[in-house]
Amino acid sequence: MTKEFVFGHQNPDTDAIGTAIAYSYLQNKLGYDTEAVALGEPNDETQYALDKFGFKAPQVIETAADKVDSVMLVDHNEPQQSVSDIDKVKVSHVVDHHRIMNFNTADPLYYRAEPVGCTSTIVWKMFGEYEVEIPKNLAGLMLSAIISDTLLLKSPTTTDDDKEAVKALAKIADVDYQEYGLAMLKAGTNIADKSEEELIDLDAKSFDLAGNNVRVAQINVVDLPEALERKDAFLKVMEESSKSNGYDMFMLLITNILDSDSEALVVGSDENKAKFEAAFNAKLSENEVKLPGVVSRKKQVVPPLTESFEG
Amino acid sequence: MTKEFVFGHQNPDTDAIGTAIAYSYLQNKLGYDTEAVALGEPNDETQYALDKFGFKAPQVIETAADKVDSVMLVDHNEPQQSVSDIDKVKVSHVVDHHRIMNFNTADPLYYRAEPVGCTSTIVWKMFGEYEVEIPKNLAGLMLSAIISDTLLLKSPTTTDDDKEAVKALAKIADVDYQEYGLAMLKAGTNIADKSEEELIDLDAKSFDLAGNNVRVAQINVVDLPEALERKDAFLKVMEESSKSNGYDMFMLLITNILDSDSEALVVGSDENKAKFEAAFNAKLSENEVKLPGVVSRKKQVVPPLTESFEG
Repeated sequence: MTKEFVFGHQNPDTDAIGTAIAYSYLQNKLGYDTEAVALGEPNDETQYALDKFGFKAPQVIETAADKVDSVMLVDHNEPQQSVSDIDKVKVSHVVDHHRIMNFNTADPLYYRAEPVGCTSTIVWKMFGEYEVEIPKNLAGLMLSAIISDTLLLKSPTTTDDDKEAVKALAKIADVDYQEYGLAMLKAGTNIADKSEEELIDLDAKSFDLAGNNVRVAQINVVDLPEALERKDAFLKVMEESSKSNGYDMFMLLITNILDSDSEALVVGSDENKAKFEAAFNAKLSENEVKLPGVVSRKKQVVPPLTESFEG
Repeated sequence: MTKEFVFGHQNPDTDAIGTAIAYSYLQNKLGYDTEAVALGEPNDETQYALDKFGFKAPQVIETAADKVDSVMLVDHNEPQQSVSDIDKVKVSHVVDHHRIMNFNTADPLYYRAEPVGCTSTIVWKMFGEYEVEIPKNLAGLMLSAIISDTLLLKSPTTTDDDKEAVKALAKIADVDYQEYGLAMLKAGTNIADKSEEELIDLDAKSFDLAGNNVRVAQINVVDLPEALERKDAFLKVMEESSKSNGYDMFMLLITNILDSDSEALVVGSDENKAKFEAAFNAKLSENEVKLPGVVSRKKQVVPPLTESFEG
């Protein structure tokens, strides 16, 4: 059997990298020959988790077809979020927790999706189904992925399956998941040594909303006032990025992971800012607004924006 | 929880109907409120299986959105093979063993696909994973679906999983699967009381091959010479159907289920018939050719035709 790559989406997070490592391990146990790789370097939070449990960051690839014929995707399926030459390789397996969009294959494949908070929750179930034991350090990495995606089980994307997986994995990894989880999330909140340009690109996705190219970036912090001291600098790079990339609106969600609240900064035309205000039923004051309880881009930001722009 | 429909593809076969009934049973055990329905009446083979194991044919629906908000699909995902108003309902679950094509959702969902011979093989695994007991009569119906899709485990689409499922289900159903399977397949081969028009539409699918609309129909028989006595009548209705439906080529695969051989009848332009001949490296003689060992449209007919038309 020829080797296959296993990888998550571009701008990888702890789910994309941690679950690629976990799924590759499982598939190798089942007789496949796979290697976990990544479409980018780990962020600070992911690096913290890798170090804690003794993993090296996976090899970063720019293209796949020059090295393998076939790949396995985790934590994504949409081609524009995948490796640049995804159309030149066969996708043999997918494990994911997102909607399915523009994903077409020539042949039947293994596809496993569930609407849970994290891809590692699904892979945890699969270890059970195939009766493969999860090594202690791998359990820690999978735990990290779930803590990351669910913000320590506080995001509205969290399901009972995620909670069950966290408890089971914490037991195998022998860590206090509350204590470890907070430390890991905090490791991803060090914004002091990063430029505003870097910060607005760390975890950012583009969405087509009724013909508008809308960018939604998110950064996690433990000290909102400290982040907002840099408000003018953030607005400046958001304006610049919008001009050079053609964004019709740019929203930066600054999330306090300790109390699960966010502050949003928004740049764009008056018309689009009005649509933003209608979406959240809240008034912008000097491009800024509080969004109490909002932490999930997927579940709490994109759906109201979509409705407001398309309505 | 509001009720959801579970159904297979148009022109339903034993997998589409049998697996819809099995998956609906499993989901109801897991707490959903579902009803198995169908997008057409059972064929003779499926009716034989339903009668044998004491099931009524599912309600036939033309549309879904007027009755439910949400549906679960088995044995298909491509919208053009589904209910006519599939774009007006939410798809919450899919279990399938085909390629994924033009299947897009707004929300995350449950999707389970494996490249095995029959959807019931996957559902059989899921019963095991959820530790739900399979009732005796339902095991018989799921067994029938696998026997149908794999032609009694002789089709090249058959995997080890299908074989394992057949043995396990035959044990629960307490039937000799060889004996029962042959009887069930034979029940689907009674062509004497059907017109040629009916026979070429019983199990037929259209494919876009490099801009050509190619129709591939298949009928199962136990007596090839008896079927070929009607060759002229078949060719006539294939010509007529091509004209009225705009098919660029029409191929009828007549499969002897006892010895796993087929005879093909083909109508179309000389150019397209030449592509057919190149695909199978075989000469048509008066629109007819033997295709020894060919039984699977999905695995042995569509791929070589695709290559020949697109090459």
